[in-house]
Amino acid sequence: TTHSLLLLPGDGIGVETIAEVERLIAFFNAKSNTARFHVERDLVGGAAYDAHGVAVTDEAMDKAQKADAVMFGAVGGPKWASVPYQHRPEAGLLRLRKDLDLFANLRPAICYPALADASSLKRELVEGLDIMIVRELTGGVYFGEPKEIVTLENGEKRAVDTQLYTTHEIERITKVAFDLAKKRRNLVHSAEKHNVMRTGVLWKQVTTDVHKSYAPDVKLEHILADNCAMQLIRNPKQFDVIVTDNLFGDVLSDEAAMMTGSLGMLPSASLGAPDPKTGRRKALYEPVHGSAPDIAGQGLANPIATIASFGMALRYSFDMGKEADLVDQAIARVLDKGLRTGDIMQPGMTKVGTSDMGKAVETE
Amino acid sequence: TTHSLLLLPGDGIGVETIAEVERLIAFFNAKSNTARFHVERDLVGGAAYDAHGVAVTDEAMDKAQKADAVMFGAVGGPKWASVPYQHRPEAGLLRLRKDLDLFANLRPAICYPALADASSLKRELVEGLDIMIVRELTGGVYFGEPKEIVTLENGEKRAVDTQLYTTHEIERITKVAFDLAKKRRNLVHSAEKHNVMRTGVLWKQVTTDVHKSYAPDVKLEHILADNCAMQLIRNPKQFDVIVTDNLFGDVLSDEAAMMTGSLGMLPSASLGAPDPKTGRRKALYEPVHGSAPDIAGQGLANPIATIASFGMALRYSFDMGKEADLVDQAIARVLDKGLRTGDIMQPGMTKVGTSDMGKAVETE
Ligand SMILES: CC(C)[C@H](C(=O)O)[C@@H](O)C(=O)O
Ligand SMILES: CC(C)[C@H](C(=O)O)[C@@H](O)C(=O)O
Repeated sequence: TTHSLLLLPGDGIGVETIAEVERLIAFFNAKSNTARFHVERDLVGGAAYDAHGVAVTDEAMDKAQKADAVMFGAVGGPKWASVPYQHRPEAGLLRLRKDLDLFANLRPAICYPALADASSLKRELVEGLDIMIVRELTGGVYFGEPKEIVTLENGEKRAVDTQLYTTHEIERITKVAFDLAKKRRNLVHSAEKHNVMRTGVLWKQVTTDVHKSYAPDVKLEHILADNCAMQLIRNPKQFDVIVTDNLFGDVLSDEAAMMTGSLGMLPSASLGAPDPKTGRRKALYEPVHGSAPDIAGQGLANPIATIASFGMALRYSFDMGKEADLVDQAIARVLDKGLRTGDIMQPGMTKVGTSDMGKAVETE
Repeated sequence: TTHSLLLLPGDGIGVETIAEVERLIAFFNAKSNTARFHVERDLVGGAAYDAHGVAVTDEAMDKAQKADAVMFGAVGGPKWASVPYQHRPEAGLLRLRKDLDLFANLRPAICYPALADASSLKRELVEGLDIMIVRELTGGVYFGEPKEIVTLENGEKRAVDTQLYTTHEIERITKVAFDLAKKRRNLVHSAEKHNVMRTGVLWKQVTTDVHKSYAPDVKLEHILADNCAMQLIRNPKQFDVIVTDNLFGDVLSDEAAMMTGSLGMLPSASLGAPDPKTGRRKALYEPVHGSAPDIAGQGLANPIATIASFGMALRYSFDMGKEADLVDQAIARVLDKGLRTGDIMQPGMTKVGTSDMGKAVETE
């Protein structure tokens, strides 16, 4: 089989970390006699805007539609602070998510044992932490209409965003969460604000309904999003899978990621629905961290989150679970050996740059 | 002067913690020859629903409108899980906030030195922590219309909430934040998602404009809400005042409160605009914690958050800053003496119940 992969490095350190994935792809292509990767490249974010005046071109979208998977780096930076709103770097990412219908964003928050001390939280609270946040990614306040700023008669402005969810949207994301929990520790927390939001009321109802086909094996707990933000800090290990909407997912997954002490290490997968004929799901993989303009272009970035995202691609898009395990193990071993990029540097460890870290993972 | 105060204990431990405020009021009334408190009482939340079939009666609202300040306990509990949505306990609180136009919610996140070890975060990160979160409380997705669930032709449901902000709403809350920062450490972080939300775009614009009359003394930093959730954990002491909208404020303030290790200790104030004639602002004071149905009625609740909320009432509603300081000092001294309710119990300390804790604060 040949797997087609579109690389969209984007801006800032995205360029450097995606280069390390290319290294791994070359390695797999040279080594394996079964699977081969066919790679295409294109621009996204500020880089696309500079070249074409848009945050992602129709051609790039076309390639993304056709590829088996997209590897995304990061977008944005102060350079594009004043481009027109519809062309801001993030617009490229949002269009990819929406047009490919990548409704299921999987964000593992795991604490690498070698890094437990880098967490702000006490070691015993995060050691061994392994949460999967399942964030709805194509609905909610991110895409609901109306979404506009209007000028009122008195000269004031009025801005509106619309938080919107349908039964169908909630059903499909909740199923993803329950299916994942079945392969993990059989517990799903569903986070919303049904005490204040109508979308929260519907979210709770639909989640409860979907749960019926998973009970009693998988347990469902409803939790208010504000309480979830608290409980993550108080006792993160009480969670297995957390399913939540686009906006709460944005905030809660960043909170959880930072807590692990492994922020520069965390991958994510954004998946579409399986094609009814082929079973293939569209997919985009990206690190949880951003484009880090302050250290971009200096070979300092930690490539592990992007490499781990490629590991998720192997697992979820290419059915190469064994190879995905190898990638994860290689990352753990490199850390155990004491190699560290600047963001995770600790006393007594060996400081390396982006490409040395990439090479080290390849070698393992 | 006589200060009028409406007590709304509500449900669960709210009843017990407000009783300790009554103890303090009696103390002040007996002691002082200048200020006297005239106290009224009413029901709110589940208690009001049980008695009157609504989460807050028009009479209670009327008393609240007339009082100089409202002391609120907490609302809710499993007992009212299936009352009609418009009568759920929270609806009482939301009506009070909206009808009294209490747009400015002040939530200090401070770490009591005696409790630094109770935090999930490493001691050095939270010791001495003192953040003021200024949350917009009468706008945004909490109150925007349309807010409804409709059934579509195909039988599916569609839920909508509307996030809505005007220039005026953002201006007035931002001013509160800058004014507070001037008396503190001259730094305001404004948290929004302008990269995704139009309300975030307007929020950023208006905040930037309002800042002009405070620069260069007070510094303004714009921060994305998801990044704010991260930075709070990474390095909370970088913050002084954080101003944000109703929904982000709900989540971020709970996160910050839990981080301090002092959740059962934290007060809040919700303030209206100063009356153009009298300068008086309507105000409601409440603990950050909820009604804790699991320990309600057993004399176990920590009354300190509610007592500290009364301290905020002394400061912001009654111009009794000196007395407010006394209350804060009494709380610190009681903790230094080793008295602890169950929620903050630590080895070697003396475990006490709600009323003993209240009495101890009174005595100091
Ligand atoms: C870059 C931005 C549009 C994006 C989001 O808000 O979803 C990011 O924060 C994320 O979580 O992937
Ligand atoms: C009880 C609930 C309606 C309320 C809110 O969401 O504002 C609470 O969480 C709070 O923060 O005061």
